[in-house]
Amino acid sequence: MKGLAILGSTGSIGTNVLRVVDAFPGRFEVTALAAGGNVEVLAAQIERHRPKLVSVRDKGALERLAGLIDLSGVRSVSGASGMVEVATHEAAQMVVASAVGAVGLVPTYRALEAGKDVALANKETLVMAGELMLARARESGARLLPIDSEHCALHECLEGRRPEDVRRLLLTASGGPFRSRPRESFLDITREEALAHPTWRMGPKITIDSATLMNKGLEVIEAHWLFGIEAARIDVLIHPQSVVHSMVELVDGTLLAQLGVTDMRMPIQYALSYPEKWQAPIPGLDFTQPLQLDFAPPDRERFPCLALAYRALESGGTAPAALNAANEEAVAAFLDGRAPFLAIPETIQEVLESGPHTPAATLEDVLEADARARERARQALTRRTPARVH
Amino acid sequence: MKGLAILGSTGSIGTNVLRVVDAFPGRFEVTALAAGGNVEVLAAQIERHRPKLVSVRDKGALERLAGLIDLSGVRSVSGASGMVEVATHEAAQMVVASAVGAVGLVPTYRALEAGKDVALANKETLVMAGELMLARARESGARLLPIDSEHCALHECLEGRRPEDVRRLLLTASGGPFRSRPRESFLDITREEALAHPTWRMGPKITIDSATLMNKGLEVIEAHWLFGIEAARIDVLIHPQSVVHSMVELVDGTLLAQLGVTDMRMPIQYALSYPEKWQAPIPGLDFTQPLQLDFAPPDRERFPCLALAYRALESGGTAPAALNAANEEAVAAFLDGRAPFLAIPETIQEVLESGPHTPAATLEDVLEADARARERARQALTRRTPARVH
Repeated sequence: MKGLAILGSTGSIGTNVLRVVDAFPGRFEVTALAAGGNVEVLAAQIERHRPKLVSVRDKGALERLAGLIDLSGVRSVSGASGMVEVATHEAAQMVVASAVGAVGLVPTYRALEAGKDVALANKETLVMAGELMLARARESGARLLPIDSEHCALHECLEGRRPEDVRRLLLTASGGPFRSRPRESFLDITREEALAHPTWRMGPKITIDSATLMNKGLEVIEAHWLFGIEAARIDVLIHPQSVVHSMVELVDGTLLAQLGVTDMRMPIQYALSYPEKWQAPIPGLDFTQPLQLDFAPPDRERFPCLALAYRALESGGTAPAALNAANEEAVAAFLDGRAPFLAIPETIQEVLESGPHTPAATLEDVLEADARARERARQALTRRTPARVH
Repeated sequence: MKGLAILGSTGSIGTNVLRVVDAFPGRFEVTALAAGGNVEVLAAQIERHRPKLVSVRDKGALERLAGLIDLSGVRSVSGASGMVEVATHEAAQMVVASAVGAVGLVPTYRALEAGKDVALANKETLVMAGELMLARARESGARLLPIDSEHCALHECLEGRRPEDVRRLLLTASGGPFRSRPRESFLDITREEALAHPTWRMGPKITIDSATLMNKGLEVIEAHWLFGIEAARIDVLIHPQSVVHSMVELVDGTLLAQLGVTDMRMPIQYALSYPEKWQAPIPGLDFTQPLQLDFAPPDRERFPCLALAYRALESGGTAPAALNAANEEAVAAFLDGRAPFLAIPETIQEVLESGPHTPAATLEDVLEADARARERARQALTRRTPARVH
């Protein structure tokens, strides 16, 4: 049995991780869970999986949890330190990092440092501190596996290939709900329109990132760190059906692609079972019916977030952390109705251009850059809010 | 330098093999060439590549060749024994088996027996005598590599995978020129219509096989032998664009696909350079333009050859050799204007049903079954010729 700790157990990824755990009885022991404030769902997870340790966002959430369920025999903690405790729990061989955004950085980092294999859905942490995280994994011998359909596809296509045989990575993107929307009408985009993803059911933050294509920008940075391939050899391709999860072009011009259904349990199972392969409990692609797959280059004018991500990756140092922080702030403002859709790229651009981008030599460097960029982003968002909110 | 012997050097595959050889100076030495009667092209190949040995179909062709070119310093032979001499030439490490049809069987078999790596375009030989050929390769340590875009794709997708992780193979088929043609009008199909392949430029025999889908049937049998996977786990999928060259479904439901341009130099280079990967001298797939890929199940009613091939593979023994022989005879009759398109599946079915299918324990068993099936096929074709020729 593999001991699992889950950061963000009540979110979209976390609940799917537990569905995969349930589908393979006897394979996993859920040893520690960290959640935010959704204590009702967490209580049910504790009942079912009897972890040794749980952590929630704050003391208030802990009290609410204790009111719902008998916590005797379960160590219960809270806050940032609680999340680190979950991430480094001694009985966990693997940590599923499925918190959303920068909040996952320190615990994921500590997990790698402690030699835990990490199944990473929380791509923001790798965007912020990729070099540092990889260094810790190398030192401790921890394995870093992606829970992201695209990177899982790339991981699988690259399996057993020599680095010198790889020409480039091709990350596919559904294009989100605004793939065909005319540029003029981007001003009017509503929260509901942006949350209606055409192919994947995901949490709100990543769904907005998909609508701006920033998700693909973050994935370019994630792929750079996971596979050690420079930005110039990572391309993005719009593929509305989300059936081809990504491709690898080899030096002889052939391409390897991984295809499958759009169900997050697939990449989760991949990461949790790696290097083994298990029969999936869900039906595969149905080839008894006609299937059409389309591919087209992305429109970088309507979706400036993509170019901003490349620019941050090329700037290096703390620039990707600033990109991520500005994006998180702008997306939160958009989701709260405090900023229009177009404020997202504009805020990120302003923050990126204001610099300075310093080397990311320590976790503190990254956290400082994150805080600085958030402050700048909030200022930029406040300045514009009265005029253009939707 | 890798010594290469080429069986069928003046055909569609053979000439492309020599283009690949030319594209990689210093990698190959062309040591022996076997051709049929196209002595003009062969003479030019001899001038350019200076092989140590050449063989042609018969004494007449040899005389014509000697009239075109000074053969001093080149051993020149002819006939079936000449082809075997080329296939087992001492300076060849690899034999490219690109003869068309059953004529390639004995030389390819002798090459494997002699421990030569074989790059196999001549799939008919594997259809006829797969078990025997694999046994000889195992004994001698020879490597058998496919020169067939589909099998090259499968070979590449299977590379580094454990057999137990593979659920099934999915061979893609363009569907040929009659993919959308109504069944009623199959009676009127002409030679020119059948030779107009929508995506691949190939020799006439394989082009007709593509129009009947027998090519895919032969490929199912080829895949069975090359990859050791039973017929029930090999499926066919119509994919008109021929961009996805084939796919492998893994037990967890994910699929790996190999994609690329439709240029035979790609699978040739794959086989000739394996296990290395070389920069190809031709442009890869162009993703700067929109690309649409379609997939649909094959229509087994309009294309009965596919089911006939599965049936022959399941019957085992000499049944696939009989299938292949009947197909070769019927295709030749169709190409000569001696039989209509629909005579192809009808002849094969008649020959297959007439049996008997005996064990293919020796090469002689296979050659006898081949001869017997050809005789039966010719009788069937003669019987029907007056009534329905196009």
